[in-house]
Amino acid sequence: MKFSVLILGNSSATPIYERHPTAQVVNHNEQLFLIDCGEGTQMQLSRYGIKSNRINHIFISHLHGDHYLGLVGLISSMHLVGRKTDLHIYGPAALQEILAVNFKYSETELRYNLVFHPTNPEESEVIFEGNCISVRTFPLRHRIACTGFRFQELPRPAKLNMEKVQQLQIPGPLLNGIKWGLDFTDLSGNVHRSDELTSPAPKSRSYAYCSDTVRIPDYLPFIQGADLLYHESTFLHEMSDRAVETFHTTALEAGEIAAESSVGKLLLGHYSARYKTKELVLLQDEARTAFSNAHLSVEGHWYDVD
Amino acid sequence: MKFSVLILGNSSATPIYERHPTAQVVNHNEQLFLIDCGEGTQMQLSRYGIKSNRINHIFISHLHGDHYLGLVGLISSMHLVGRKTDLHIYGPAALQEILAVNFKYSETELRYNLVFHPTNPEESEVIFEGNCISVRTFPLRHRIACTGFRFQELPRPAKLNMEKVQQLQIPGPLLNGIKWGLDFTDLSGNVHRSDELTSPAPKSRSYAYCSDTVRIPDYLPFIQGADLLYHESTFLHEMSDRAVETFHTTALEAGEIAAESSVGKLLLGHYSARYKTKELVLLQDEARTAFSNAHLSVEGHWYDVD
Repeated sequence: MKFSVLILGNSSATPIYERHPTAQVVNHNEQLFLIDCGEGTQMQLSRYGIKSNRINHIFISHLHGDHYLGLVGLISSMHLVGRKTDLHIYGPAALQEILAVNFKYSETELRYNLVFHPTNPEESEVIFEGNCISVRTFPLRHRIACTGFRFQELPRPAKLNMEKVQQLQIPGPLLNGIKWGLDFTDLSGNVHRSDELTSPAPKSRSYAYCSDTVRIPDYLPFIQGADLLYHESTFLHEMSDRAVETFHTTALEAGEIAAESSVGKLLLGHYSARYKTKELVLLQDEARTAFSNAHLSVEGHWYDVD
Repeated sequence: MKFSVLILGNSSATPIYERHPTAQVVNHNEQLFLIDCGEGTQMQLSRYGIKSNRINHIFISHLHGDHYLGLVGLISSMHLVGRKTDLHIYGPAALQEILAVNFKYSETELRYNLVFHPTNPEESEVIFEGNCISVRTFPLRHRIACTGFRFQELPRPAKLNMEKVQQLQIPGPLLNGIKWGLDFTDLSGNVHRSDELTSPAPKSRSYAYCSDTVRIPDYLPFIQGADLLYHESTFLHEMSDRAVETFHTTALEAGEIAAESSVGKLLLGHYSARYKTKELVLLQDEARTAFSNAHLSVEGHWYDVD
């Protein structure tokens, strides 16, 4: 089952040519989610061949422009190309006011239903639960209220060993229970344990997203053990004072956070415009001193969650 | 004296990859003006090597997103890179409210002064007058209130014939008056006409911008005789019903308007996303049936006003 993340933008507040403000697409089993929507997101979606109307859920971390200024344009374009499906937006309550004032003066009446879900900046909560994935917010600490997101696959059933099922002539109605861990007792009273009749369920994978935040221990439980962590790394650690002052994280800190949280892989992003693209490798080198499986995120690349 | 226009975006409401929403830079004598500011304008400025802080005056035609959604990001980035100079914004009064609500929730306090000049959607008025150029609005007719802009060079003085000045020993304090048309009477009482002492002033050039509008005669006096006219041509004329319905213009109409207004050259733009880039030449062909000096505007190209 596909689970991967496309980076549309990994620049911090001041974009530079070919480094766009924050946005990424999560593809889970061909269901597309958008995380943040910086200016130019709709053009980046078009560039990388993603039809915007395949996206039904958009998650906005906070109300700094580089994380949401593409939203009005994207919503408008979805309208112009004839969208009918509901669009769910999860973000700070005030985002609804920002959207409303834009649509008021452009006299836009959307042809589809925009369902707004205000997020709670104080407490972690599950804000989306689908058939096979859930999304949980958790508070980050930035200059203004900001949440991270954790995409967590729901537990999946074990896979039946069909040879044994046929051999024991297990009735069909019992099979689902067995896949979910129930034991089977045959007519002779012999108990066949679920794990003898199945091969283990695939591991439930998870993706955690942390941007923007200063380093605090509070959110570590929520990213614990994620297979893939995207963590902002705006600065090199030589600028740690600036990072604290602007409520951002250094590459070294991102690496340490990844190590402390036992994640599988770390993706760096939200790079300061002061670093030229060829210098970004310094951020990666620095993060790797604390966590070897750290990688620069690159715009236009898909990263598997596994 | 330089007078040219850089096209940053010439797409209509739905942008597609490599066709950006409307924005353009006017360079008059190295003073830069921005007309409209669609999503992604700050990245386009960066792409074409324009330092955003060289821009002190921004003119917004109307409040459809494809003409202003890049403004909050641009203003923010100017702030982040340390701008101190006043920034003047001219546009519909409600734009001020849109800017305010964005900056309220991002808790942005600009380090520079943002001076807002509401435009009048009902009547033409001069909204900017500098040392050598003025900008006049004029009402267009779109689904919502919309203004065009005419950049008009102020009359320039004639050039003195220095040989004659020296021959007649004309005193220095009189020279400026002679350049502006005053005659000179020498000590013997002979009158030397200004036009005998000078070569003619360069023609006062003008650039007119019309986007978005349905074709109406009302604005023709305001674009009359412009050296360069940028006129929207969203559709081919086979879609003239759609053009009327959406308050836009066809390429044929743009050509006819250019001919009726005796402009020097017509630049087409605001292309519908339905036309592939290679098909845009059809719009040019159509406009040329009415006005031979019609050209497709191309993003990243500078067009001289002469």
